[in-house]
Amino acid sequence: MLKQKLTIVKVGGAVVEDEAQLQQLLRDFTAIEGAKILVHGGGRRATQVATRLGIESKMVEGRRITDAAMLEVVTMVYGGLVNKHVVACLQAIGADAIGLTGADADVIRSVKRPPVVVGGQETDFGFVGDVKAARGEKIGRFIDAGLIPVIAPLTHDGQGTMLNTNADTMASETAKAMAAVGYDVTLVFAFEKAGVLANADDENSVIKRITADDFARLKVDGTISGGMLPKIQNALNAIAAGVKRVVITSARAIDGQHGTVITGNA
Amino acid sequence: MLKQKLTIVKVGGAVVEDEAQLQQLLRDFTAIEGAKILVHGGGRRATQVATRLGIESKMVEGRRITDAAMLEVVTMVYGGLVNKHVVACLQAIGADAIGLTGADADVIRSVKRPPVVVGGQETDFGFVGDVKAARGEKIGRFIDAGLIPVIAPLTHDGQGTMLNTNADTMASETAKAMAAVGYDVTLVFAFEKAGVLANADDENSVIKRITADDFARLKVDGTISGGMLPKIQNALNAIAAGVKRVVITSARAIDGQHGTVITGNA
Repeated sequence: MLKQKLTIVKVGGAVVEDEAQLQQLLRDFTAIEGAKILVHGGGRRATQVATRLGIESKMVEGRRITDAAMLEVVTMVYGGLVNKHVVACLQAIGADAIGLTGADADVIRSVKRPPVVVGGQETDFGFVGDVKAARGEKIGRFIDAGLIPVIAPLTHDGQGTMLNTNADTMASETAKAMAAVGYDVTLVFAFEKAGVLANADDENSVIKRITADDFARLKVDGTISGGMLPKIQNALNAIAAGVKRVVITSARAIDGQHGTVITGNA
Repeated sequence: MLKQKLTIVKVGGAVVEDEAQLQQLLRDFTAIEGAKILVHGGGRRATQVATRLGIESKMVEGRRITDAAMLEVVTMVYGGLVNKHVVACLQAIGADAIGLTGADADVIRSVKRPPVVVGGQETDFGFVGDVKAARGEKIGRFIDAGLIPVIAPLTHDGQGTMLNTNADTMASETAKAMAAVGYDVTLVFAFEKAGVLANADDENSVIKRITADDFARLKVDGTISGGMLPKIQNALNAIAAGVKRVVITSARAIDGQHGTVITGNA
């Protein structure tokens, strides 16, 4: 039997929070053929709202420390403000979107991260959830009903507590779960650059295709470094778990024909 | 064919915002047999968050004026903070809840209320939505999938804008829509009093049953007055539109055996 195609697009805070960019992204997203899921961030907006509420945003290596007050902020901003805005905008262009956090229909459950050592120092990230179970069969039911899930970066622990979860992780865990229940999954990470660049200063130096073997080589020769390393490792993990391909591309070019494609070894 | 029983419970902000009361209410709600929907408020919490953000809450005859800044607050608080907390708590007690606003799956669409005359003065309520279409068949699909919809008092206009909508109205419009697609609907308004009281100072004076004929009489003789009038009129409208019965009861007694039952004329 031919597998059903499913495209999962992850879009970060910078795009979601720029109204013109968001509208263009949503039109491009809607134009993608077949089943679709959108996963969004919203971190900058959360920081803004927290600041206005007099709550300080603390980050360790780019990850937010989520105390009880910050958990309320991200639940409001990701689950309410951003998610409902995206859903309403998709509905306005005829896409039958439904907003979900991990708690809704229990689609993604997580465990609160224990304190971890970061840069030699024990760090308690607070109410941050590491995904334990993404339930592809339940997400698939929404797709079967003709709906487009719009997933906010929030999960729950099954004991009544919401947890803040990285949006990239939400996207790749969702992709893996959908692959596990038989979908032909393309996972698209939409961000501000054109793709993985051979030369960080040259937007025209997009590497078209990266396999696990390529990655090992590009890592050793220093072509890929910094924040791109975990992104690609994350992508390769998804491929290893059955996701067909991962595309790292500009939010302005999410049609799957642009950016860097990460696949299994040929 | 026997109609499927459906109980819709509307619970106001005061209960939702008191953790002990909320947990008890959710346990009682979960114990109700058959299909269920929960509709919640959250106005006090919205007022608190607005105040912390330096946004003034303006009310006219108990209804919130919703300017652009306040729309963001209610979208955050109702759609994010309160809705996700309730969903996570229901999941924790084994109830497969899914949070919805009117925008999600386009279940409840509204029109922005034009300026209206209140107490002789033209009043623009701002981003407030009057329900235009509640889609029972779509809400029914969630129920068929074994899910328990948890509905926040937010709708959308179909053009990308969320709108603030009164939670009592959300509950009665949902009840009417579900009755229209064939459910045997009981609508429960859970609030702080034991029911409709014959004597406002006596919690033991609950009127057991009110029909349209009773209401006409109780209105004339002054037994029912003030804020209870629109509540009962609203209930009778739901009955006229096919809802089987409406119960006005204490949030501590939502089993359908307590409070005031409003039904059609015998």
